[in-house]
Amino acid sequence: MKHRPRNLRRPAAGRKPAALDGLRGRIDRIDQQIVALLAQRRQVVQKVAAVKQQQDLPLFHPAREENLISARREEAARVALDPDFVEDIFRTVMRYSRTNQLDTLGRRSVRPGAKVLVVGGRGSMGTFLARWFTQSEYEVRVLDREDWPRARKLTAGIDLALLAVPIEVTPAVARQLGPYLAPNCVLGDITSLKREPLAAMLQGHSGPVVGLHPLFGPNTVTMDKQIVVVSPGREAGACAWLLEQLAVWGAVLVETPAAEHDEIMDIVQAVRHFATFAFGQFLCARRVSIPRTLELSSPIYRLELGMVGRLFAQNPSLYAQIIFATPARRALLKEYLDFLHRHVALVEQGDQAAFIAQFKQVAKWFGSFSEQAMRESTWLIDQLVHRF
Amino acid sequence: MKHRPRNLRRPAAGRKPAALDGLRGRIDRIDQQIVALLAQRRQVVQKVAAVKQQQDLPLFHPAREENLISARREEAARVALDPDFVEDIFRTVMRYSRTNQLDTLGRRSVRPGAKVLVVGGRGSMGTFLARWFTQSEYEVRVLDREDWPRARKLTAGIDLALLAVPIEVTPAVARQLGPYLAPNCVLGDITSLKREPLAAMLQGHSGPVVGLHPLFGPNTVTMDKQIVVVSPGREAGACAWLLEQLAVWGAVLVETPAAEHDEIMDIVQAVRHFATFAFGQFLCARRVSIPRTLELSSPIYRLELGMVGRLFAQNPSLYAQIIFATPARRALLKEYLDFLHRHVALVEQGDQAAFIAQFKQVAKWFGSFSEQAMRESTWLIDQLVHRF
Repeated sequence: MKHRPRNLRRPAAGRKPAALDGLRGRIDRIDQQIVALLAQRRQVVQKVAAVKQQQDLPLFHPAREENLISARREEAARVALDPDFVEDIFRTVMRYSRTNQLDTLGRRSVRPGAKVLVVGGRGSMGTFLARWFTQSEYEVRVLDREDWPRARKLTAGIDLALLAVPIEVTPAVARQLGPYLAPNCVLGDITSLKREPLAAMLQGHSGPVVGLHPLFGPNTVTMDKQIVVVSPGREAGACAWLLEQLAVWGAVLVETPAAEHDEIMDIVQAVRHFATFAFGQFLCARRVSIPRTLELSSPIYRLELGMVGRLFAQNPSLYAQIIFATPARRALLKEYLDFLHRHVALVEQGDQAAFIAQFKQVAKWFGSFSEQAMRESTWLIDQLVHRF
Repeated sequence: MKHRPRNLRRPAAGRKPAALDGLRGRIDRIDQQIVALLAQRRQVVQKVAAVKQQQDLPLFHPAREENLISARREEAARVALDPDFVEDIFRTVMRYSRTNQLDTLGRRSVRPGAKVLVVGGRGSMGTFLARWFTQSEYEVRVLDREDWPRARKLTAGIDLALLAVPIEVTPAVARQLGPYLAPNCVLGDITSLKREPLAAMLQGHSGPVVGLHPLFGPNTVTMDKQIVVVSPGREAGACAWLLEQLAVWGAVLVETPAAEHDEIMDIVQAVRHFATFAFGQFLCARRVSIPRTLELSSPIYRLELGMVGRLFAQNPSLYAQIIFATPARRALLKEYLDFLHRHVALVEQGDQAAFIAQFKQVAKWFGSFSEQAMRESTWLIDQLVHRF
């Protein structure tokens, strides 16, 4: 095509609307048919879900989903559409379809009518869990700070006492509650540490005990594929119905001994959150202009800055509790700060060779995870660029 | 629904296939119709693109896209589908449609036949740019390290010389190349710093000069919506065709004075990359088990760890260059490390009150960005959970 000077680049008036409007009308009609088909599809999917529920079959069938994707990809190739595009479309369709089924059917109760006491049930996670149990036909009671005078009555006949109180009071609450519980009542907690709370629950209660750590917050809409760490305490068989209920709600359970859990969380929670906090604080101290910075930023920086920003949209007390939870964590944080400070000489001297050598060492240690992370984050960034 | 004991949860054999297979067949037929409609849609979109190209109209019409989304959302609500779901579907459709149009039509040349010399054209970004110019009917030549003896011949009659060489040699190369260039030849660079390279280009060449900083790497498939920072040098009018070509390829141009650009990049590139590097190095030094950590991680941690991992999948020399580029950067990094180290007392004492006070101060400063980051990252995490 030839280059035309700028002043000739306006089209002749009147020509555009007719041709384009006709074509756009055709696109709109095609799109309307697609919407209608999606609505039909949902009705059939609901029938499938009803059959599965009736026959007590699992709602999800990963192999069927992958077969469906493969078939759609082949059809796409036959009509000269990009198979990745068609896969994207049907992954989105199936994702919403799953969420939809979980919302309507996934609340099946494993023990309808069982009595659940949520201790700290007026806190944000307590409220969240109380709502899920209520929706699944459990009889839910709440014991919060001011309810201890009625503890005898609230604990009468309960099948499960779930502690959803701040980390630092969990051990004390476990010991305080223990004497009220019947020997067959399950005692569990949801704090982000497991060793001390679990020890306290085992000490306070002689019956079944299980430590849980849901890796999601109270704003989660669906539990579909969310992880719950399970640290077994005592009488695993008696605790099984609780774990099954979490699985029915869509959660993925990962069993881990309390000590290993806590060691990993020292890094995953304490050091990471602290590093994010400190980076945000540095930006604030330097009065960096966020809007201007975003304007001059690649999507990956936007994403990384978003990770920092999102921390500060949340509850500072919760993060203070997590970060400073134990002496071991505080020692690890000090170690981290000292470790970083050893880089002062490197940056003062601008020693690129030393940096490159250290970089290569870490890259080798990360191994294949780096490549995977590159692929996943590139895909995500692509989503981010085109969505916002 | 009533709870059944575990041993009753298998369905009667033979009942399942008939009912489910029929319903699944219906789903498949609906999906096939959707694929067929998407293929039809693409044909109409190609006609729209042809009309637009013929009349020299812009390919994208954001208002039309938003109207289309609004209309589909309304139709979704009318047939009791989740409007967010339908929006997701059509955003995906339009995204692929845009990429498709860019791939087939977006390579329109603003100055077909113009001669472009890519200096450092055998490096990764140089190769990338040479490919784009070639695809848009430019005559592309490459001058790399070993080609200086032929510099006279390679620069003869060129309309653009684009420097794609490492940061630290860009100023020297600009001064070395300058004398070869005709007065009407555009001289530009693509380094991630702008002040010094721009000064060197202005010194080395008396004609049109422009500093560019593409905020994307050589693995980018499409330039659609990618940012290129433009720091004007001299004779902006004579450089306009180059910027127009970048815009035709889909890039978004953000004009910024060189000094402001460099100041922002000190933070966006140097401090951020260094912080990420140091975090990865700490994980490596502590021999943290990445696979086990990922198993016990929420999607947000997976994403954050991915940001760290992805750094180490890339070129260490490139990062060394970026991080240690200037004395100002090195001073800022030292400031950052000293700043962090002042937190030692805070973590040793586990002073939660001080942490909370500082947290609130930063949160206030971040302002509405935190909420926005929370929303965007939550959406992304949702994508991540359901895709991988």
